[in-house]
This record gives sequence, C-alpha cells and structure tokens, in this order.
Amino acid sequence: MFYKSMLQMKKMLGQFDSWFDLAESHAKGRGFDSNLYLGFRLAPDQFAFARQVQTACDTAKLSASRLTGKEAPAHPDTEKTLDELRSRVRSVIGFLDGFAAKDFDGAATRSITQPRWEGKVMTGEDYFLEHAQPNFYFHVAHCYAILRHNGVPVGKRDYLGALTQRLP
Amino acid sequence: MFYKSMLQMKKMLGQFDSWFDLAESHAKGRGFDSNLYLGFRLAPDQFAFARQVQTACDTAKLSASRLTGKEAPAHPDTEKTLDELRSRVRSVIGFLDGFAAKDFDGAATRSITQPRWEGKVMTGEDYFLEHAQPNFYFHVAHCYAILRHNGVPVGKRDYLGALTQRLP
Repeated sequence: MFYKSMLQMKKMLGQFDSWFDLAESHAKGRGFDSNLYLGFRLAPDQFAFARQVQTACDTAKLSASRLTGKEAPAHPDTEKTLDELRSRVRSVIGFLDGFAAKDFDGAATRSITQPRWEGKVMTGEDYFLEHAQPNFYFHVAHCYAILRHNGVPVGKRDYLGALTQRLP
Repeated sequence: MFYKSMLQMKKMLGQFDSWFDLAESHAKGRGFDSNLYLGFRLAPDQFAFARQVQTACDTAKLSASRLTGKEAPAHPDTEKTLDELRSRVRSVIGFLDGFAAKDFDGAATRSITQPRWEGKVMTGEDYFLEHAQPNFYFHVAHCYAILRHNGVPVGKRDYLGALTQRLP
C-alpha cells in the first residue's frame, strides 16, 4: 500500500496545476499580480503559500526517498512565482514517476530517521502513517485553504481530482 | 494497512481535545465565549469549524463502517458548544475502539458506494486512498487552520501527537 499511497500523493500534487490556474484567473479578474499569492498566509507565524507548496512537495519526495533508499533531487526553495512553483511540483512528480511497486519492498520495516529526531528512529510504516501522510495532507490542505481564504474558487473536486469509479 | 490507517485516524481525532483546550484558554484570555469558534470559517462559503469537526468525525466513522460492513452510530449534527463537539469526537473514538484488524479482512476489494455517486462504485482500496483519507485530513487540517487563523496557538506537535519513536 506504500506504492499506492505514493501514487495518491503524486495525484494530489497533480491537482495543484488547476489550483494555480484558478488563482491566476481570480487575480487577473480582480486586477492584482497572481504571484502575490506566494506570500499569503492564514496566520502571521504560519508558513506562507509558497512554503506550504514547497513543504508538500518535500514531504512527498522525501517520504518516497526514505522508504526506498532512492536519493531525492534537491530543491533550494527559491521559487518567487506561480510558474516556478509549477516547475517545482512537476519536478517532484517526475521523481515520483520513477518508482515501481517493488521499490517499496521492505519499506514497512525500514528504519527511518530525520536530523531533528535526535537519533531516534521510526519504522517505515509508523513513519509513513504517523508523520509523512498527516504532514503531506496538512500542507496540501493549507495550500488549498490559503487560496480559498483569498478568494480563489477552488472546490472539493479540484482537491480530490478524478475518482476511480465504475458502474457495478 | 487499513486497520492501522484507521488507528491513525482515531489518533488524529484524539488530538482534538487538546486543540479545544487551547481554544478555550485563548478565548478566556481574550474575554470572549469559546463557543464562538464553532461558527468561525476561512471563507464565507466554506464549512464553519463545527461542521469541519463533524465531517472529520463522519469521514473516520463512515470509512471504517463502509470498509468492514459494521453499522456506524448516527450523529445528528446538533452540537452548539465545544463540549458537545468533545462528546461527538469521543463517541466516534469509542466506535473505532470496537474494531480489530480482522474486521478489515477483504476491505481492499469491497465494493463501496455513496448516494451522491449515482450508482457508481469504488473498490475499498481506491475509496480509502482517493476519497476517505484525503477528505479526513482535509477537514482535520481545516479545523486546525480555522483555530490557528483565529489566534489559537496550536502547533505541529498538537497536530501530529506523539510519534512511535525509539532509540536504534
């Protein structure tokens, strides 16, 4: 289920493009620079939109990397425009495109750590369920919320994307 | 992994208590009724805080129910106070306490539907990954964001809760 969960993260990142389109169209209609969105935030001491997008990207990228041992590409967090954020998202989607289900063999029991954990470790499964997934969705939902709070007409369909449904 | 993912949803709902405490303490310090939080929202046409909490609860409750065939308790969405929301959350946690790993045997291939899907179905696995989990975290993160936007000093530790870490 790690591989499928990673594909789901990739799908969510793929939704960002339509959110950025809606932000640009809203900004154009109201006559302001759409790149202003990068600095918008919900609280003075919370990450602004650009950092929320970067962190969502990093959480997807680094969780796939940590669970498989594949090195992730570096991204220096220098984006100043929606177009540069688009490129960042595309780059991470490209990285995730390179995985196959078998890359996640043994991921559940891998020992995962991070610099800020002061030497402590988590199993891959605990890390993914308790840390990576909640953090990923936290930042994705905050991206959505910042846009929505600032007038962009994103809706639940833009959030979830197309569902794998069929007639019974 | 369905059972463990359900336990993770239960854990997230368990974090709400401390968020409500922080909201009450913030409201007391600023001299306003903490139950006002139930009506706060990030956009005029988005769910208010109470509805975000109710929907997070329902998504956890209904996904466990749909994946296992166990009937979920009804909740009529009548909460008017933080204490009533606490009871709602506790009730759902109590429901989730009643599950064991074996209840989720066969969940991945179960056929899941909802009234608004116009007769279409999803497999349990697709439903959980593409619909239940993203929706659950969407509403949990919006609960957090509404509080944070309105001055409540919730932080990432309040969001994630304790992590299953150990020394290697």
